[in-house]
Amino acid sequence: MHIQDIQTPQDIKNLSIKELEVLAEEIRTTIIGQVSKHGGHLASSLGVVELTLALHQIYDLPKDVMVWDVGHQAYVHKLLTGRFNRFNTLRQQGGLSGFLKRSESEYDQFGAGHASTSISAALGFAVARDHFGKDNSVVAIIGDGSLTGGMAFEALNNAGVLKQNITIILNDNKMSIAPNVGAFSKYLNRIISDPKYNKLRSDVDKTMQRIPGVLGSRFRDLFAAMETATKFAFKPGRLFEDLGIRYFGPIDGHNLAELIPLLKQVKESPGPCLVHVVTEKGRGLALAEKNPTKWHGCNPFDPESGLPLSPGNSNPSLTSIFGKTVLELAKEDSRILGITAAMPSGCGLDIVAQELPDRVVDVGIAEEHAVTFAAGLACAGVIPIVAIYSSFMQRAYDQIMHDVALQNLHVVFALDRAGLVGADGPTHHGAFDLSFLRSVPGLAIMAPSDEHEMRAMLISAVKEIQGPVAIRYPRGNALSNEWKESLPEIPYGKFLVEEEGEEILLLGAGFMLQELKKTAKILQAKGKKPTLVNARFIKPLDTEAYRELFEKHSLIVTLEDNTLVGGYGSAIAEMLVDFNLKNKTILRFGLPDDFVEHGEVSNLYKQLKIDGESVAEKIMEVL
Amino acid sequence: MHIQDIQTPQDIKNLSIKELEVLAEEIRTTIIGQVSKHGGHLASSLGVVELTLALHQIYDLPKDVMVWDVGHQAYVHKLLTGRFNRFNTLRQQGGLSGFLKRSESEYDQFGAGHASTSISAALGFAVARDHFGKDNSVVAIIGDGSLTGGMAFEALNNAGVLKQNITIILNDNKMSIAPNVGAFSKYLNRIISDPKYNKLRSDVDKTMQRIPGVLGSRFRDLFAAMETATKFAFKPGRLFEDLGIRYFGPIDGHNLAELIPLLKQVKESPGPCLVHVVTEKGRGLALAEKNPTKWHGCNPFDPESGLPLSPGNSNPSLTSIFGKTVLELAKEDSRILGITAAMPSGCGLDIVAQELPDRVVDVGIAEEHAVTFAAGLACAGVIPIVAIYSSFMQRAYDQIMHDVALQNLHVVFALDRAGLVGADGPTHHGAFDLSFLRSVPGLAIMAPSDEHEMRAMLISAVKEIQGPVAIRYPRGNALSNEWKESLPEIPYGKFLVEEEGEEILLLGAGFMLQELKKTAKILQAKGKKPTLVNARFIKPLDTEAYRELFEKHSLIVTLEDNTLVGGYGSAIAEMLVDFNLKNKTILRFGLPDDFVEHGEVSNLYKQLKIDGESVAEKIMEVL
Repeated sequence: MHIQDIQTPQDIKNLSIKELEVLAEEIRTTIIGQVSKHGGHLASSLGVVELTLALHQIYDLPKDVMVWDVGHQAYVHKLLTGRFNRFNTLRQQGGLSGFLKRSESEYDQFGAGHASTSISAALGFAVARDHFGKDNSVVAIIGDGSLTGGMAFEALNNAGVLKQNITIILNDNKMSIAPNVGAFSKYLNRIISDPKYNKLRSDVDKTMQRIPGVLGSRFRDLFAAMETATKFAFKPGRLFEDLGIRYFGPIDGHNLAELIPLLKQVKESPGPCLVHVVTEKGRGLALAEKNPTKWHGCNPFDPESGLPLSPGNSNPSLTSIFGKTVLELAKEDSRILGITAAMPSGCGLDIVAQELPDRVVDVGIAEEHAVTFAAGLACAGVIPIVAIYSSFMQRAYDQIMHDVALQNLHVVFALDRAGLVGADGPTHHGAFDLSFLRSVPGLAIMAPSDEHEMRAMLISAVKEIQGPVAIRYPRGNALSNEWKESLPEIPYGKFLVEEEGEEILLLGAGFMLQELKKTAKILQAKGKKPTLVNARFIKPLDTEAYRELFEKHSLIVTLEDNTLVGGYGSAIAEMLVDFNLKNKTILRFGLPDDFVEHGEVSNLYKQLKIDGESVAEKIMEVL
Repeated sequence: MHIQDIQTPQDIKNLSIKELEVLAEEIRTTIIGQVSKHGGHLASSLGVVELTLALHQIYDLPKDVMVWDVGHQAYVHKLLTGRFNRFNTLRQQGGLSGFLKRSESEYDQFGAGHASTSISAALGFAVARDHFGKDNSVVAIIGDGSLTGGMAFEALNNAGVLKQNITIILNDNKMSIAPNVGAFSKYLNRIISDPKYNKLRSDVDKTMQRIPGVLGSRFRDLFAAMETATKFAFKPGRLFEDLGIRYFGPIDGHNLAELIPLLKQVKESPGPCLVHVVTEKGRGLALAEKNPTKWHGCNPFDPESGLPLSPGNSNPSLTSIFGKTVLELAKEDSRILGITAAMPSGCGLDIVAQELPDRVVDVGIAEEHAVTFAAGLACAGVIPIVAIYSSFMQRAYDQIMHDVALQNLHVVFALDRAGLVGADGPTHHGAFDLSFLRSVPGLAIMAPSDEHEMRAMLISAVKEIQGPVAIRYPRGNALSNEWKESLPEIPYGKFLVEEEGEEILLLGAGFMLQELKKTAKILQAKGKKPTLVNARFIKPLDTEAYRELFEKHSLIVTLEDNTLVGGYGSAIAEMLVDFNLKNKTILRFGLPDDFVEHGEVSNLYKQLKIDGESVAEKIMEVL
């Protein structure tokens, strides 16, 4: 049985361990081949090849239910569930998703992209099963990183009392994306490796064997009690047992001969069970085994050397520019601390940590805690810069509202990956931040249109603005290679008129201004003289200055990479109707009120008709 | 020293335990007196009288930092920090807040209202202290209910590795608002009360004492190892120790003679420490001791009989009507399950649970898990009705987006306490739900204008709508006592024209329609004939029907009890500019882009000029 012959998971049901091991090699080769050509998540999937094979041999999908946390580690699952033929389309527009997706396959029973949701969802499936009197099995697979997210704990806490039959596979690779942080992760490591702990356990076991038979019976009972006690003390995974969840493991996640019998046994065990499976992230690719953080997700590369195949735009990433700017600021002002939720390199704070390790706190996958922790810091005089991807910041909406804004605290939020992110698709697009942030009273929201403005805004957010402030910027590289020493001033709440014109007013939010510049050029070529405005601030808005702008123009155009519902264009609409200006024509361009699929960003712009050319075309239609 | 003489916490520093006990009685009398007259949170504050006295004797505010989780239990703290004289203004407009508030007192170092934030904030204070080289102490006080919220776990996980000196007081009254649920709570109970567990512990202790001295030395070492092991096994609070947090307790929270020395010792202990304090919710008021859920928060009552002083509007609460409707639906359709996050009576699902206990799942204080759990249920054929207060639903914004809406699952969200809630103030006002929900693609949002419509919408949400759907309704009572058998039809996405008129179009969202009815009457008295429309749906909007409405009127007025940023009026503004209708005058009424203080709802309406009279007045000005 070769990988290309597998149509459904039924095809691997009767394979021997030897055959599975051969298949495992083919799967690794397939994944490395695909990801090295087109990029993607690499190390996580390589780590769960044997685990996924074992699970599909034991569980019977789609009758049984398999919920993968996040889902970026589920390439093996895709290959085993009839998607080998389309695997070369992975993460490309119109192709397979890089995550699980209910609409893509009946074997993808619960989609994800954000962390820590799998136990909650699996518990839902299990409660529903029992409610309807069915007898299928439910298994959730969650990484040790995801397990530190608060909602995973909420779900464990609930699972421990509901007592439904459910199996939780803890895929412990000692990593989330970066090496895992947090007391919980330490606890897991101690189970696996602490020599003192293991020594003590073995000493006590020996003691038990050496209790002399000559001791009277009155001791024997007491020793029995002690034995129970010491076994209890040294059972690994007590923490889970304390929460009412049976613990099994730790077990080597690459040893099919051990894995399969244990997973079979657990599948038949009643109540909530957790199997602690130890895997190696990046297993089978030496490069990735050595540096799993770097190879968590990657662009096309040469599998031998690890060198990138097409360097593409070689300008520095906005993420790194953000990191360098925070570093500069932190050197100047000791009050600044950077906060990341398990993404030091993803958000650029690794650049700060390398030079000033005590100026960055990685709180783990814990966006809610990150924000309220920052609120506490701010109360005590720190200036916290909380760097979290736009779509993950959705997790902390309440904390931004209730802990930071309501108390008017000076916390700086840096939302990387705002707007469309490309291949990661709908779970990762930062399509809603302007809408949910705009509802927060007293929060300043800035969107830079280039890297220099981004740096200037960050400096202004730290030095000039006193209350809560957010800066949002897209995934991708800077427009140039230049590191300017002299940066634009960012007057609070003011837009910037980039080009003065007449009749047509082009209002661009953030990097979408670059598209509007193209629109302006096209219009100019057609003899028009549009005014081009860089919004800079989404909140607050300088209403009087906007009113003047509106009065001078008859056609008002907004462009943003946020949903049209509640975003920048919505703010402009609110102002326009509140001003009661008549005889204006308005065109709002932005993301649709729908989830946008994965694809190359510039292609998506065209498809959604929010690229510079499409905007110009529509304007010409209206004029 | 009497309660009325205490100006600052310094005044209790040197009181003896006897004196503190006398003071404790005075405090209880003061709190019961105030709450029985004006309502408020009762049982929680009564439970922490001694604990608060002990803490203020030991910690030195405002140099030291005290963070109270939620804050509804901090009436004692208020009385000890110079607010006795204003205590009779508690929860009244312009008076003291029912929660802690930084702007109210320098002793309120971190405000709250939502649960589970205190450890995160306290950790922020502690990290800042160490960063700046200061030496103050930081203590967080958190209930056992709040501790099950995910972000509390995220914070514990972080505290266990950061190792800052910080004391966490676990105020274990075995309750959140309702009796606590979840494996964690079971675990805490086991520490306190499990006789088997305690028996085993005591047996082993005795064994240790009875090891005969005649045994050779080769055994002695092994026994020493066993002793370590058994102590480890039976140390209560191992779960916390496993997370790197030193555990102390359990200790009686009403025994000052035990409490004070232990808290003093812990204050001086290095690293993160947790003190497990067992208290009785409602202590000192027999009524409340017996039924702490009922007396968690209450309206004015007679302290002897417990009978309400002013029954007020005696119509049933919307909450109870919701519960009765869910019960009816659940009887008809076995697929329906109600989900509550630790608020069975607050959200009305207790009514279902009394009759059909297996049709309601209380997941604990865990809004994130609640929503994703519901998503899992929906995938497996259940119709989940997730009932969570509007302001607490902010916690689950990402889960609504990522787990429910992105997968287009049929989950019904019931948001009680939407709009202004009155005395609980800004942390509890449901002021943002229309804004954050409106950004969610594919989510239907309904707002009933009366109780009959609420029932009809709930029925429609369950039976007719296939995807995700939210219904939001305010705190308070029904407009009438009538239980209609025949309910209005709720055509999907359609508004309802209540009165046909001309020139003026009045668009009301939800119960604010009742205010607009007053507006219409006033206008009619002035010879106008406004059209009155009940929006019913905030999303989707029947754009073509709205366009017709707009075309027929010159003045368009919207009214809602949601922020004007991104709410219903914003949706109307978006439509209006997208339609490019000229020569319309628009007036949007709603909550300001600011946090609204506590106060009586009808007074707040007047103050914010969103009551029917103010709206009519403004319209007459514009005409």
